[in-house]
Amino acid sequence: MKNLNKYIEHTLLKQNATTEELDKLFEEASQYEFRGVCINPAYVKMAKDKLKDTEIKIVTVIGFPLGANKSEVKAFEASVAKADGADEIDMVINVTAIKDKNYNYVIEDIKAVKIACGELPLKVILETDLLEKEEIKKACELAIKGGANFVKTSTGFVKNGVGAKIEDVKLMYETVNPYGLKVKASGGIRDKETAIKMIEAGAYSLGTSSGVKITTG
Amino acid sequence: MKNLNKYIEHTLLKQNATTEELDKLFEEASQYEFRGVCINPAYVKMAKDKLKDTEIKIVTVIGFPLGANKSEVKAFEASVAKADGADEIDMVINVTAIKDKNYNYVIEDIKAVKIACGELPLKVILETDLLEKEEIKKACELAIKGGANFVKTSTGFVKNGVGAKIEDVKLMYETVNPYGLKVKASGGIRDKETAIKMIEAGAYSLGTSSGVKITTG
Repeated sequence: MKNLNKYIEHTLLKQNATTEELDKLFEEASQYEFRGVCINPAYVKMAKDKLKDTEIKIVTVIGFPLGANKSEVKAFEASVAKADGADEIDMVINVTAIKDKNYNYVIEDIKAVKIACGELPLKVILETDLLEKEEIKKACELAIKGGANFVKTSTGFVKNGVGAKIEDVKLMYETVNPYGLKVKASGGIRDKETAIKMIEAGAYSLGTSSGVKITTG
Repeated sequence: MKNLNKYIEHTLLKQNATTEELDKLFEEASQYEFRGVCINPAYVKMAKDKLKDTEIKIVTVIGFPLGANKSEVKAFEASVAKADGADEIDMVINVTAIKDKNYNYVIEDIKAVKIACGELPLKVILETDLLEKEEIKKACELAIKGGANFVKTSTGFVKNGVGAKIEDVKLMYETVNPYGLKVKASGGIRDKETAIKMIEAGAYSLGTSSGVKITTG
């Protein structure tokens, strides 16, 4: 597979990342011409400054990683990220509302963030490790109704979670593709073989911290 | 030790908690007369409604669990939580800024949230699992300068983290007590023996999901 680098959203979300590590992430993203970088919202401005002369997308995360924030707070965080120069917004769904079958809440939560995003693409992280297959399908339908542009598998922060699974990516792709949404696979993608399988299953982009290994390995 | 229940902040922060589980938390807090409940910000209103005729404090978490949100977003989240009825605010420190020795950032981050809190007590979660002893001491000093009312050990969300350690609680107590701040120990407190040791080390309150076991066991 050619241009595997163009699928990679080079990701560093750990709580104790240093600015030195973030700088390395930005440099690698430039060197390998990755699709984007994915970083916490406090560092969007830094990313924008470092990557201003590139095509690399600055992706950040909202309500991350628990998604149990108020909708208005998620929306405000997205609007601040946009003002700071974010190109794409990855929000976490409210898993409690999915479990409660409180579907209207989920739609309104997504809509609130989408309004803040405006023209910026919005990805909705479903946290597939915590959902049954039927809930994944339902969450995709709610993301469509909420106006999202992507569904994304995982935060990578679930204890003992495995992250993206081929079968989940397929299910998500089949559910959202007819409506024009894309799929981002994330969590546990650590080698070229897995990356290619995810793309074959329908992934449009890959969230991973192993982008260098994947594209050079 | 008498009145161990009065130290307990009965905690449910997992991403896939259902409303049924949250209701159970509130009922147990009433039954055992715990100091408080600690829940994600999307559920503060629910807690306020369920616990309105009690003395139980409604504690919520801000910028949780990564702390890598913009200061203005943390402050807004705190102000929304206050409007929803929160009694105490537990914010996560920016660990990147600690690692970078960007101490002014840490102070301003805490100050921004304290302004939003107004008279509400503010706890600063240091995430001791990720810090060296010297960093823990420094973070305590920054919390004092930022106007915090408590320092708290842990989010409970660090991969392979152990949470509160006796030696850390002691160090935190010794550092902040002369300035009138209190210590909340949280993470990994699962039995009466550990709870008592934490209190003896200087903890004023205990964040745990094992409050029922601790007080009845």
